[in-house]
Amino acid sequence: MILRPQRHWFVRLFAWHGSVLPDILFRLSLNLMMSLIALASLNWYETLGIKLTLAPFSLLGVSIAVFLGFRNSVCFARFSEARHFLGALLIACRTLQRQVMAVCPADAPRVQRLLLAFCASLKHQLRRTDAREDLTRLLGDEAEGLLQRHSPANVLQLQLSHWLAEQRRQGNISDVVWGNIDNNLNQLAAVLGGCERLASMPVPFAYGLLLHRTVYFFCTLLPFALAPDLHAMTPLVSMFIAYTFLSLDTLAEELEMPFGYENNHLPMDAICTNIEINLREMAGESDLPLPMQPDKYYRLT
Amino acid sequence: MILRPQRHWFVRLFAWHGSVLPDILFRLSLNLMMSLIALASLNWYETLGIKLTLAPFSLLGVSIAVFLGFRNSVCFARFSEARHFLGALLIACRTLQRQVMAVCPADAPRVQRLLLAFCASLKHQLRRTDAREDLTRLLGDEAEGLLQRHSPANVLQLQLSHWLAEQRRQGNISDVVWGNIDNNLNQLAAVLGGCERLASMPVPFAYGLLLHRTVYFFCTLLPFALAPDLHAMTPLVSMFIAYTFLSLDTLAEELEMPFGYENNHLPMDAICTNIEINLREMAGESDLPLPMQPDKYYRLT
Amino acid sequence: MILRPQRHWFVRLFAWHGSVLPDILFRLSLNLMMSLIALASLNWYETLGIKLTLAPFSLLGVSIAVFLGFRNSVCFARFSEARHFLGALLIACRTLQRQVMAVCPADAPRVQRLLLAFCASLKHQLRRTDAREDLTRLLGDEAEGLLQRHSPANVLQLQLSHWLAEQRRQGNISDVVWGNIDNNLNQLAAVLGGCERLASMPVPFAYGLLLHRTVYFFCTLLPFALAPDLHAMTPLVSMFIAYTFLSLDTLAEELEMPFGYENNHLPMDAICTNIEINLREMAGESDLPLPMQPDKYYRLT
Amino acid sequence: MILRPQRHWFVRLFAWHGSVLPDILFRLSLNLMMSLIALASLNWYETLGIKLTLAPFSLLGVSIAVFLGFRNSVCFARFSEARHFLGALLIACRTLQRQVMAVCPADAPRVQRLLLAFCASLKHQLRRTDAREDLTRLLGDEAEGLLQRHSPANVLQLQLSHWLAEQRRQGNISDVVWGNIDNNLNQLAAVLGGCERLASMPVPFAYGLLLHRTVYFFCTLLPFALAPDLHAMTPLVSMFIAYTFLSLDTLAEELEMPFGYENNHLPMDAICTNIEINLREMAGESDLPLPMQPDKYYRLT
Amino acid sequence: MILRPQRHWFVRLFAWHGSVLPDILFRLSLNLMMSLIALASLNWYETLGIKLTLAPFSLLGVSIAVFLGFRNSVCFARFSEARHFLGALLIACRTLQRQVMAVCPADAPRVQRLLLAFCASLKHQLRRTDAREDLTRLLGDEAEGLLQRHSPANVLQLQLSHWLAEQRRQGNISDVVWGNIDNNLNQLAAVLGGCERLASMPVPFAYGLLLHRTVYFFCTLLPFALAPDLHAMTPLVSMFIAYTFLSLDTLAEELEMPFGYENNHLPMDAICTNIEINLREMAGESDLPLPMQPDKYYRLT
Repeated sequence: MILRPQRHWFVRLFAWHGSVLPDILFRLSLNLMMSLIALASLNWYETLGIKLTLAPFSLLGVSIAVFLGFRNSVCFARFSEARHFLGALLIACRTLQRQVMAVCPADAPRVQRLLLAFCASLKHQLRRTDAREDLTRLLGDEAEGLLQRHSPANVLQLQLSHWLAEQRRQGNISDVVWGNIDNNLNQLAAVLGGCERLASMPVPFAYGLLLHRTVYFFCTLLPFALAPDLHAMTPLVSMFIAYTFLSLDTLAEELEMPFGYENNHLPMDAICTNIEINLREMAGESDLPLPMQPDKYYRLT
Repeated sequence: MILRPQRHWFVRLFAWHGSVLPDILFRLSLNLMMSLIALASLNWYETLGIKLTLAPFSLLGVSIAVFLGFRNSVCFARFSEARHFLGALLIACRTLQRQVMAVCPADAPRVQRLLLAFCASLKHQLRRTDAREDLTRLLGDEAEGLLQRHSPANVLQLQLSHWLAEQRRQGNISDVVWGNIDNNLNQLAAVLGGCERLASMPVPFAYGLLLHRTVYFFCTLLPFALAPDLHAMTPLVSMFIAYTFLSLDTLAEELEMPFGYENNHLPMDAICTNIEINLREMAGESDLPLPMQPDKYYRLT
Repeated sequence: MILRPQRHWFVRLFAWHGSVLPDILFRLSLNLMMSLIALASLNWYETLGIKLTLAPFSLLGVSIAVFLGFRNSVCFARFSEARHFLGALLIACRTLQRQVMAVCPADAPRVQRLLLAFCASLKHQLRRTDAREDLTRLLGDEAEGLLQRHSPANVLQLQLSHWLAEQRRQGNISDVVWGNIDNNLNQLAAVLGGCERLASMPVPFAYGLLLHRTVYFFCTLLPFALAPDLHAMTPLVSMFIAYTFLSLDTLAEELEMPFGYENNHLPMDAICTNIEINLREMAGESDLPLPMQPDKYYRLT
Repeated sequence: MILRPQRHWFVRLFAWHGSVLPDILFRLSLNLMMSLIALASLNWYETLGIKLTLAPFSLLGVSIAVFLGFRNSVCFARFSEARHFLGALLIACRTLQRQVMAVCPADAPRVQRLLLAFCASLKHQLRRTDAREDLTRLLGDEAEGLLQRHSPANVLQLQLSHWLAEQRRQGNISDVVWGNIDNNLNQLAAVLGGCERLASMPVPFAYGLLLHRTVYFFCTLLPFALAPDLHAMTPLVSMFIAYTFLSLDTLAEELEMPFGYENNHLPMDAICTNIEINLREMAGESDLPLPMQPDKYYRLT
Repeated sequence: MILRPQRHWFVRLFAWHGSVLPDILFRLSLNLMMSLIALASLNWYETLGIKLTLAPFSLLGVSIAVFLGFRNSVCFARFSEARHFLGALLIACRTLQRQVMAVCPADAPRVQRLLLAFCASLKHQLRRTDAREDLTRLLGDEAEGLLQRHSPANVLQLQLSHWLAEQRRQGNISDVVWGNIDNNLNQLAAVLGGCERLASMPVPFAYGLLLHRTVYFFCTLLPFALAPDLHAMTPLVSMFIAYTFLSLDTLAEELEMPFGYENNHLPMDAICTNIEINLREMAGESDLPLPMQPDKYYRLT
């Protein structure tokens, strides 16, 4: 199990790493600038008959909040589904190793290596990084051939299937046992297919676009609507509202594609290490890898 | 896996293709016209004792936002369910090919062709396009007979079932193996039935109707309520609010039936090509088709 | 697959059939009357010290919108679940026919008739209409006995089960095949039980009651709160708000019990015809029934 | 199927039974009293400099509406899940009886009695009522022993399992058939475990507490905020808002634990009778019990 | 089944234990202090031209309510999923014991001990407490070896699997029965993996952070916006609003990680005791442990 230290609520208030502040700083400072412009030109543009009151912005702000809430639900659901798949991967690996140890103990070490290579391939495919190092460590010379395939994870799953079919053909396992283990191979296929679906299909582009535009335009005009009432307090209140809306917009976007290295992405390295620890312990090995620890900013990759 | 390039947030702000702007331009210009009429006639109709204040529009606007949020959830759920079915199709095709390669390697090429033809038929059935080209490429002369059937995809699934029953009858596979592979044929049936359900059953018509009417009427009256307060700023604020509401309404409608060629529809060509790449790679073929790439407007069909 | 023509957005704005307008016309005219009363008596009741301002109605209106949104979600979920069950019925019928054609081709015609009779019985049970015509067409003399049973659909499923058990007893199919087909009979049972659950268990009565009361009382008082501000525009704005709230309330109620003949109910006739077309095509028949077409108001029954 | 008459919408407006009005009458009258106090003391406390305006109450009211909406979703989901379990119980009972009639027709009557006793035990366990009468009617002398067990429903399921194991041991059914029926016993176990989970684990206490407190405090202070604007209309508007919020709060609480005898609880007696009618009809019995009918207040227990 | 007494609604209003009041008391008193500062300095800072009006806070407050509602849904879903897993654990344990009693009655006592040890290990792993006492009570000397493993629960599941494989190897059970029981071992694996997922993967840190910051900053500034209107009533209204927002924020955080000893966490001790009572009763034992009772503050651990 991956351990996570908890921070005190007071410390959290001022957290920088792990928050989305760095990502929106530039846009917040744009908002500050607009506030100062609004304050400076207040008297001038009021004489021109240009008036902005807060009432339509209030209507719009609440509407945007409802739509942002919808988008956050959708993007969080993707993040959550991705995490489910990786949890299902751990369960399927444990189950396959357990079943192979029960019916073909002799081949368990090889199956274990294939399973760990499957996990590593999946990780690198989703992150679009190079799987060479991990595959070479686990499979030795076989790695080279795999790396040239379109989808190494799928090929590895096929190898597990070939091994299983071979056992059946040699009469080591009955059709019933074959069917039972094959069903768990299907679990691997479901994890692979599901993760590929998430990685290749973002939320419809127009949602993000629509909310980006609306949020930015809203935050840009807001200071002009606040200035007539709030005067000197305009920058404070305007930046506070902008911070809330921009943060949620940015966070939703970050969670939409949860397989990368951003702060709020899934810690796939830690998850793969955890699977390796589990499978090796089940095989009775004693020199297990150490669980990955968060860095000093409480981040895991 | 289908690759998608990401655009910078600033570039997105001004995206035209992929957004719903082209679809609502006419209605936005209507709204602009109403704003100008409201401004021009402001003094005249106020003398008639006709007054519109923003307060009831604020109440109505928030209500519409809640209902639009509901409709968006419902339509997005359909889009998302459709994407799940296509993901499940990839998984089922891989699994069937894997199982057939394990138990009847000799027939794997024929099964592969039937599976690819199933995918192509499903795509053309959902898009109501002509499947002739794809089916002829995959099945040769058999295609002609299929094209005259009511549901070619269902017939293809039946052929897979016949082939499987034949194997069982000849004693090539046991009842257990038959049952196991047949369960995965059921997955194909579930994908087919699920997609047909989505394509034949829209969200109840009255929802769309109700929101269309409410949104249009709201956007039409809004300028008259804004004009007394905002004067010259009326067109800007009115069009901004109208843009937000009309866009979400339009986008929800686009996602309701996700099997077409619109910007935010599912890239079924790319998905079918991806399935073909996967199945052929599993069969050890080396001249795989290239994955489809988005066009310069980041669109996939 | 059931085909549905699409209407242009402009045409939709003025649709009458398929909308809920006919159902709420009476209540809308009540609202109009209250508006006129409010306008006429405005001066009189203001001198009595009776004042209604919009602010509390705004608070209440947004709250009602949230609760109406909740009720709509719940009722739409029932509609959607019902549609899922009917989709699952198509899938289960196809799968059962497919499996029976694979293992007992001789009995396929009889099983097909029983499946179609099951669909027809389910439809008539849910709609509380007379199944005599459909059952006689499909089963001939057997229909009479069925019609006197409490749940003909359940009895038909039992007959399928008896037929299957008989095959097993005679050694035509092994226990494994029996189990496999029996699992798909369970799918029929799940559809039957699920539809019965929806039809016999509405949303808790108090939800509908509470929203009815709140919406009606709100719409009745609203004109008195609008009149002091809007004067002559009161009827227009008041009826618009009332239209939005009453429509959603009415639509939710219509979707709560989706098995009838209302505009937004499920087109069960079309769905049953579609199942019949599919099963007959699978059996190689050529004189298939025609798919049902929507009438000129775009309605299917 | 359980039948439910429908009431006309106008009749519903004045329904008393089945609504939550009786439960909140006391609190509504408290609210009326506060309104009168607020009106009477309006001049006095305004001279003291104590002012309450509607704006912060509007903010708070909308927030409470959002949170009440959340709590209602959660509690309704429990109600709905409970109804699903009871629907699954009907399906599982039908399926088990169907399978037993197919493979061991001789023992079907005994299995039927055990299934009906399971349903009755479950009902009485969830309602914490005495199962003696029902169990004695169904099982005769065996009932006494059961009533002294911690969980009679679980023991009955174990007896079904023992019977099934005995059939397998005597060679009446093969391992495959045993596995198939045993899977449906697992459905019973899932229903039992799921209902116990719902009954033993309420929504976290703090949610209800928080909303109770907030709603009551809000309703108590509201008249003081309404009085300065609405004068004589304060009691009417205040009680209307209080009615909406208190009703939803009360209804959510009622649905949280849906296994009792309240108006909006599940009609478990009718559901159990319905299962009995179904199982007996399947066995070919003709003197079936009558379906339970709602009383004159449209209530079923 | 775990019993829970119900408290009267009036008593609840003043409940202290079980509420989140103790956790937010410090922050509420900070809010009170800010209210007093706002009141005291009202005249002074208004002369400086610093003005805060309620309108932007109203917009912000409603937005925060929407986002808090979202976060509460997410955190409650975790709590609810965790409760589902523990319910599934009870069902899986009952089913495994039932199946083992049916096919290998002789080994049932040992399997029961392993199952109970699995539950205890899971509980201690999730709570990060010492499992020594529980494991020693259940397994005697075997406990020592288990306690040194990385994941004792996983090892125990492996021992169950070894036992089952041994039965199969000795020919006591057929492959079909092995597959059937093994599927239920997979249920244990799913519970273990699911709980580990919940415990190791919180909601993305940035959500909590964002809402903490927004809620605290909002509550801090609120008194300054309320003071100009409400004067002496500022502390009361401000603390009421702060109470609502801070409570929901705190409660969401508490439910995010539901495996601890907080008031609203899952009563894992009671759940494990309940499983033990059930399994022992199934085995026919008569000296069952007593169900755990809530303490006088209605808390279960």
